[in-house]
Amino acid sequence: MRTMTLGPTHLEVPVVGIGCMRIQNLSPAEAERYIQTALELGANFFDHADIYGGGECESRFADALHMNDDVRERVLIQSKCGIRKGMYDFSKEHILEAVDGSLKRLKTDYLDVLLLHRPDALVEPEEVAEAFERLQTQGKVRYFGVSNHKPMQIELLKKYVRQPIVANQLQLSITNATMIAQGMNLNMGNEWAVDRDESILDYCRLHDITIQPWSPFLYGFFEGVFLDNPKFPELNRKLDEIAARYGVSNVTIAIAWLLRHPAKMQPIVGTMNIERLQASCKAAEIQLTREEWYEIYLAAGYMLP
Amino acid sequence: MRTMTLGPTHLEVPVVGIGCMRIQNLSPAEAERYIQTALELGANFFDHADIYGGGECESRFADALHMNDDVRERVLIQSKCGIRKGMYDFSKEHILEAVDGSLKRLKTDYLDVLLLHRPDALVEPEEVAEAFERLQTQGKVRYFGVSNHKPMQIELLKKYVRQPIVANQLQLSITNATMIAQGMNLNMGNEWAVDRDESILDYCRLHDITIQPWSPFLYGFFEGVFLDNPKFPELNRKLDEIAARYGVSNVTIAIAWLLRHPAKMQPIVGTMNIERLQASCKAAEIQLTREEWYEIYLAAGYMLP
Amino acid sequence: MRTMTLGPTHLEVPVVGIGCMRIQNLSPAEAERYIQTALELGANFFDHADIYGGGECESRFADALHMNDDVRERVLIQSKCGIRKGMYDFSKEHILEAVDGSLKRLKTDYLDVLLLHRPDALVEPEEVAEAFERLQTQGKVRYFGVSNHKPMQIELLKKYVRQPIVANQLQLSITNATMIAQGMNLNMGNEWAVDRDESILDYCRLHDITIQPWSPFLYGFFEGVFLDNPKFPELNRKLDEIAARYGVSNVTIAIAWLLRHPAKMQPIVGTMNIERLQASCKAAEIQLTREEWYEIYLAAGYMLP
Repeated sequence: MRTMTLGPTHLEVPVVGIGCMRIQNLSPAEAERYIQTALELGANFFDHADIYGGGECESRFADALHMNDDVRERVLIQSKCGIRKGMYDFSKEHILEAVDGSLKRLKTDYLDVLLLHRPDALVEPEEVAEAFERLQTQGKVRYFGVSNHKPMQIELLKKYVRQPIVANQLQLSITNATMIAQGMNLNMGNEWAVDRDESILDYCRLHDITIQPWSPFLYGFFEGVFLDNPKFPELNRKLDEIAARYGVSNVTIAIAWLLRHPAKMQPIVGTMNIERLQASCKAAEIQLTREEWYEIYLAAGYMLP
Repeated sequence: MRTMTLGPTHLEVPVVGIGCMRIQNLSPAEAERYIQTALELGANFFDHADIYGGGECESRFADALHMNDDVRERVLIQSKCGIRKGMYDFSKEHILEAVDGSLKRLKTDYLDVLLLHRPDALVEPEEVAEAFERLQTQGKVRYFGVSNHKPMQIELLKKYVRQPIVANQLQLSITNATMIAQGMNLNMGNEWAVDRDESILDYCRLHDITIQPWSPFLYGFFEGVFLDNPKFPELNRKLDEIAARYGVSNVTIAIAWLLRHPAKMQPIVGTMNIERLQASCKAAEIQLTREEWYEIYLAAGYMLP
Repeated sequence: MRTMTLGPTHLEVPVVGIGCMRIQNLSPAEAERYIQTALELGANFFDHADIYGGGECESRFADALHMNDDVRERVLIQSKCGIRKGMYDFSKEHILEAVDGSLKRLKTDYLDVLLLHRPDALVEPEEVAEAFERLQTQGKVRYFGVSNHKPMQIELLKKYVRQPIVANQLQLSITNATMIAQGMNLNMGNEWAVDRDESILDYCRLHDITIQPWSPFLYGFFEGVFLDNPKFPELNRKLDEIAARYGVSNVTIAIAWLLRHPAKMQPIVGTMNIERLQASCKAAEIQLTREEWYEIYLAAGYMLP
């Protein structure tokens, strides 16, 4: 698969990442087949979190991969920490414990990337800095990033954190593209003009932070898939039309739409369906035109003032 | 007319600019009379865009001005590019083509100012930088700016663009002043507190970017003129009262309200009516008091917490 | 009482400040008792504004304190200026006049801290800078800050103002915590995601500006007290539960919730009730756990995505 460098690092990653949030729903045999298919497609970047499946996803993944040192070198593993029952927690103590838990479940001694999962209102950036420093020195984490963070939160972290923030995982899909729409409607009276992210997209471009869109096929907050959904007739007509033009599925076009954006995003695809996985990876071979990108945008119901 | 320097440049411009968006609605004779009146008033800064009247506005303007080298030196011409049918386009190729089109229609070999018309979601600032560099080197454009842009978008451009951003054309009038109201209602539960522009007004002041208010007499998004409009009884009462005090028309006061703001704005007046044009330029001679500015603001329905 | 340094200064201030906005409602004897109680509790930081009670609060305070040079050295006095009838005014002339008025009413020759009360749309930061410079040189004001300001407004001031901005007084309570909630809901479709303050909380942390929460017991914009209010059953149940655990009143917990935040805030308590004053100061001795802080947050109706 086509690769890119992650954020400001030299780490080569496939442009489509594999989200393992639901891998515990697969049987061991299914999980093994799923991961092998991904690897055959060149999709060797796997996204985890300590809380996915209560930790079960990381374990299931390691088992399905028959993790050992040789295998470990062939994959890139990202995990997240900071969400606990009833609260978020970016304390040094919790970050260190969470990573140790992930490493144990993943049967590895290092993560390629660690993300802070959701902004903790009580974050003390000095503690995050100490935790990151320790994890890097110990060789437990190679690169650090965030998830669902806005610019000033990242600035606050950077006041103390020495390591570059390499990624920011954000909810973004054709139908959940307010972070794109706001930029084209600013200062308008309409709903799209309402600021909800403080220009996180442009901020990430400015600072060479890779945006990892999560839920690239969903609308709302986990409400459902927009593909082939009768709630989005115009969008699906347009996606099907363009998919036919390229001889690919609408899944491919949905991912290609994200990849077409010049921010050089790395969508995280969490489907557990082999065909969708293949179709998603196929997007790396498609380069939508500017016209097609805007046609899809408009078909999703956004407008150009 | 009173002049000001545009952004951080040494370019002297009249404090009221003339918007030519509707000049193709005038007959050649009317257009000639309109432009001559503007010039007699010292209003020699003309705002265009490649898309106004499908290009016809630029042509009509050049004809009405009987453009030649001598005439060219007496006027300042600003145009815009980047809006295409069904999409925005800040690609290098399109910017260069668009400027060539404008120059041809305007019968000139340079623009004083070129603005990027509306933020292109697919902007690649490296391409914009190359286009600007080329246009400046070729002598086709003297100064560069933007329109309807927010701070982070400008920051992203500035990451690559070497030339200063001298202007940002923004919709702003007494009744469309959310960018002012937000600053006085932040952190409130009311509608004005909702952020729609990420402090673009203060950002422009901070970075010496001239704000050019567009549609200074309109409410809503091209919904209508608020002056003498029964929908705004209190505002019109106040404007008439202050207009009477200064012995001018309410048009003059509407522009004087923008000029009173310390951001040193350059309103772009797009009226094609000679009397309104004269009344608009008259605003350069009026300095509203702080009390009057706030009285008008409050009469428009805003409040002070 | 536990103390902290104010902003980036070396000034030691108690972590709970006393708001004197309603002190003119007390009789001279009550006011004297109120202030003496505060001083006995170590709460020697008093927050004023030139407009509180039309100036009467500052006078009443000075009388109740029997102000003289010895007394003056035992207290820290903060006042504000910039709000006038029907407008805000940060002109040099007005700032200087306002401070002179406050000093006269307070029977002192200096303020420890001067805040600009509410952002003036017509602010000219050069004038603010001149006023601050003059006030500092004359020894009339030791430190300068703002109130109800957002990041870009502070940046604009800092373009010219040489003195550090040491404090930003902002409306913040458990039930008015949108500036906290926005940071945990960004990029969501819900109401909390709507940006109303441009990350002022994180900005203040980033720049070592002390946030002084005002109205720490109120919901809405002066709508009422949330403590013991049947409109907030779940919140009050939680506050009572935690208060019982620590053997303190719910007032104490409401303030302790603000003090638990790592931004190192200095709540301004404006109650004129002696028991509430004591309970508020008691909060300096309580350190809520992370769990308790989040439990209170959730009980107030916010959610964690």
